[in-house]
Amino acid sequence: MAPIGHPDRAYEVAAAFFGELAGQGVAHVVVSPGSRSTPLTISAHLTPGLRTWVQIDERSAGFFALGLARATGQPVVLVCTSGTAAANYLPAVIEAHHTGVPLLVCTADRPPELREMGAGQTIDQVHLFGTAVRWFHELPVATEAEPARARRLAARVVVEATGANPGPIHLNWPLREPLPPVDWVGPDPAASPVRIDRPAIGPAPSLVDDLVDVITTTERGLIVAGPNEDPALGAALSALGRAASWPVMAEPCSQARAGAGVDDQVVLAHGDHLMRTAFAAAHRAEVVLRFGNNPTSKPFRLWAEACNPAVILVDPAHRWHDPSDLVTRVVDADPVALAHALADRIGPASLSPWATAWRDADAAAAAAIAAAVDSGPMTEPLVVRTIARSIPVGANVYVSNSMPIRDVDGFWPVSDQPVRMFANRGASGIDGLNSCALGVAAADIGPVVLLTGDIAFLHDLGGLLAGPRLGLDLTIVVVDNRGGAIFSFLPIAARGEAVAFDELFTTDPDVDLGAVAGLAGVHFVDVSDNAGLAAAVSGAVERGGVNVIRVAVDRQVDLDQHRELEAAVDTATRPLS
Amino acid sequence: MAPIGHPDRAYEVAAAFFGELAGQGVAHVVVSPGSRSTPLTISAHLTPGLRTWVQIDERSAGFFALGLARATGQPVVLVCTSGTAAANYLPAVIEAHHTGVPLLVCTADRPPELREMGAGQTIDQVHLFGTAVRWFHELPVATEAEPARARRLAARVVVEATGANPGPIHLNWPLREPLPPVDWVGPDPAASPVRIDRPAIGPAPSLVDDLVDVITTTERGLIVAGPNEDPALGAALSALGRAASWPVMAEPCSQARAGAGVDDQVVLAHGDHLMRTAFAAAHRAEVVLRFGNNPTSKPFRLWAEACNPAVILVDPAHRWHDPSDLVTRVVDADPVALAHALADRIGPASLSPWATAWRDADAAAAAAIAAAVDSGPMTEPLVVRTIARSIPVGANVYVSNSMPIRDVDGFWPVSDQPVRMFANRGASGIDGLNSCALGVAAADIGPVVLLTGDIAFLHDLGGLLAGPRLGLDLTIVVVDNRGGAIFSFLPIAARGEAVAFDELFTTDPDVDLGAVAGLAGVHFVDVSDNAGLAAAVSGAVERGGVNVIRVAVDRQVDLDQHRELEAAVDTATRPLS
Repeated sequence: MAPIGHPDRAYEVAAAFFGELAGQGVAHVVVSPGSRSTPLTISAHLTPGLRTWVQIDERSAGFFALGLARATGQPVVLVCTSGTAAANYLPAVIEAHHTGVPLLVCTADRPPELREMGAGQTIDQVHLFGTAVRWFHELPVATEAEPARARRLAARVVVEATGANPGPIHLNWPLREPLPPVDWVGPDPAASPVRIDRPAIGPAPSLVDDLVDVITTTERGLIVAGPNEDPALGAALSALGRAASWPVMAEPCSQARAGAGVDDQVVLAHGDHLMRTAFAAAHRAEVVLRFGNNPTSKPFRLWAEACNPAVILVDPAHRWHDPSDLVTRVVDADPVALAHALADRIGPASLSPWATAWRDADAAAAAAIAAAVDSGPMTEPLVVRTIARSIPVGANVYVSNSMPIRDVDGFWPVSDQPVRMFANRGASGIDGLNSCALGVAAADIGPVVLLTGDIAFLHDLGGLLAGPRLGLDLTIVVVDNRGGAIFSFLPIAARGEAVAFDELFTTDPDVDLGAVAGLAGVHFVDVSDNAGLAAAVSGAVERGGVNVIRVAVDRQVDLDQHRELEAAVDTATRPLS
Repeated sequence: MAPIGHPDRAYEVAAAFFGELAGQGVAHVVVSPGSRSTPLTISAHLTPGLRTWVQIDERSAGFFALGLARATGQPVVLVCTSGTAAANYLPAVIEAHHTGVPLLVCTADRPPELREMGAGQTIDQVHLFGTAVRWFHELPVATEAEPARARRLAARVVVEATGANPGPIHLNWPLREPLPPVDWVGPDPAASPVRIDRPAIGPAPSLVDDLVDVITTTERGLIVAGPNEDPALGAALSALGRAASWPVMAEPCSQARAGAGVDDQVVLAHGDHLMRTAFAAAHRAEVVLRFGNNPTSKPFRLWAEACNPAVILVDPAHRWHDPSDLVTRVVDADPVALAHALADRIGPASLSPWATAWRDADAAAAAAIAAAVDSGPMTEPLVVRTIARSIPVGANVYVSNSMPIRDVDGFWPVSDQPVRMFANRGASGIDGLNSCALGVAAADIGPVVLLTGDIAFLHDLGGLLAGPRLGLDLTIVVVDNRGGAIFSFLPIAARGEAVAFDELFTTDPDVDLGAVAGLAGVHFVDVSDNAGLAAAVSGAVERGGVNVIRVAVDRQVDLDQHRELEAAVDTATRPLS
């Protein structure tokens, strides 16, 4: 071992750290260029089992790591230099905190003696991410640290960042000059990773007994799934819904609306629409069994408040999403294991009249929507339906916030064809979406399509540029409605000129999206109809590389159609009330 | 007054707040689109005396406000919606904290009852910016607040954000639905702003006596100015340098190297070069009188450590920048007032041999640099010298971090022609530079030229897009050396392929900068020589709008020239040792 103070010591410490991470199954490190972080960057790059991705902009790096961690289900490391570089991670760290994504944020820092005396790129990085990390720790100066300690620290951050309540952690690494190594030895290949034993995930038998009793004595029940990262939830909830004869209201990003084992006899594609109807008002639930985070649908929330059901919240991460103060029971259990255990105990059943009514209402809504949307003008609902039909089996779809997530919730069909859905529904920002989708692309788990709007696309324009450089394949469908169309749905829109509505809220960015093509080897195409969009999506997936498909949508036409559909679904489901 | 809970109450509170800010001299509000912030955005927009600027990306908004506040010398307000929108301000807030720029950050938030239960775009915004703000305060929910209190709060944040230690403050505004106003009345036009009395800025007579005694009994003294926002410092330090017969080593962003009253008999243009020479080793200072923040020059720091002089630090902001632990006296006084008071008391004098030697050495360095640079290849030093000759009188120059600030420090001439220099030397990040320069452009104080590198330019590519939309004039000179050239100056560069140097450090972004032209009405031109650059800069300033001038520079040629210049200056000044 190099003596205390020798530059190689920092590399031995970093190598021990990264070697242990690789031993724990961590595979990806996203680095941004910088000098102070040199020992971390080089050690990560040279450690067997780790792949480094270089992102110039740390904000994009954060979101790229977020997408990569979501897609792989493994912690992803971030490495940056000191100063505002680290501060740029904050938006992605906050999103990771709220949706439970394990990011291992390693910020290089000046050693203590260089702080608060005007040294370059030196800020206060201690607790820089505030309450948004599961754990913060500052290491000793790396040239004075112990490799064995760093190895166990790596195991510990994996424990802290994963488990029932996963999330980001922050390690602050003070590093002292000189920073280049004399000799790089690398992690000890003989070191065995620390073994981490987790609790068994099966629910307690008494809990299963108890919930089976609730389910089998309640006809009017509803299963609700909010955004969730676990692809296994879909089959589990369909099995439970079928056994219980309870419909499943599945947000698409719950992974419970499409995928192997998803059952269209119980899963609702149009819950967001149904909840506004006279049908839903006449079909009040007595018990709602909710899994995880809040669903996006506001009509569901209002309907639940009107029904005032008993709400059982399965919430192993202790997030307690309960906007309407309806929760009567909290269950700290693994959702997939619990749902399967309940379904297995209840056993097969034919659909009850209650479940049949919801299934038929969903079918009626689907027919009304198809009739109005598919032959109508180019609107966001049609974009969603076309993408759903055009993507290959096993594709991954990242959905931006603002309108896209609402439209995907409203218009994505139920299917047993696997598709993984991603969205940033933790803090629900419109930042970093291009980078998030590129992060999923980096995970190499099949084609990736990002559905986004023009504002969100431009918010992360810089992030897009990394795609071609990193050799990634991504198809981006940009719904270009010249600004933030979601504001048109709000009451403030009616005030128009008096409140400078267009200038302050809609904010048409006045940018020619087609010009991004020239920037960095991005393939661009403009489409204006259904067939063109379908062909462009299939073509882009086949071609590979980074593809941007712009679909121009008129804000007013889109707004009018959304309002017409509300009435149409209500009318179509009224005979079932 | 609207009753508690009425939506108009929030507007009355916001109008009182913004009305008082306008009364206190605040003129600019930078808003980003969002729904939760509606009462703040609309009230700011409708308040007489305030101009609103709309920025889509909150990170760019933060830096835009930073530039605007620097250029106007007045606090600038930031308004955004809740969630990661607010988090995107962090990099700019940290820079403002370190350089003392008054930003009044107003983040809309969900009311307390919507926090920690899964409501959309709801994060923990309390103390979101940690130790980087002068003051944090959370208001009551706006519909329950008192307009009179909001008015005094506005006066208070101006007090907190300005004065001897200016900086950012953070107000968190909980807002409850419904958010649109029923009637907008606006601030009370009869309300008088709170009167704010500040301490007299003149130094105590005993302090002046004491320092005059030090100066008049010390021949070998040096005045050093780091980055500083006050344009009056230049004339003050030249007057003091002339009276004391002490040379002035002025970082360009100190405003003391160029401007009215700047005296080329005492101000050194090439201090950064001189400090490495045998001349400087033979000319050791006994006393250094330092004003404000650290200068950028590392050779100065090393020279000072070798000289071990008494260092008197004039530091009213209490930043205590003392990387070498040399400070023997701290003076809490206004720099401009103190320098003038000392100069007036000492009175006129002819240059001492000590000051003459430094002046002659600076002239010799200038001649050596001119001979090597002006007829040589296109390098960063030539870019700097050409810009200095091409910009009109009264121009503003924003200098990016990494190489540009070092090159401007090394190669910008002394001049009594006014030019205001800006740089982010607080946290010294490469983020947000396009937006910062656009913020200066928004202040309407004359032509603005940004000198930046390709990496920094792309880091804030999104920020650039706002320029044409906002109708701003900015000339950007991008030194395109295909990546982060500063790393080539570091020892790690010698490791090359073994440490994946090009991939991990240089990071050629592989982007065609010319394509930005098509994006948003940006005028683009490629130049390859001195005359072309000069013509492009003059042409761009004349044309107006947003202009990008790309100058391709070869990293290796540039690196070689920097090293040759070091030797050339040493040789040229050796006869004076």
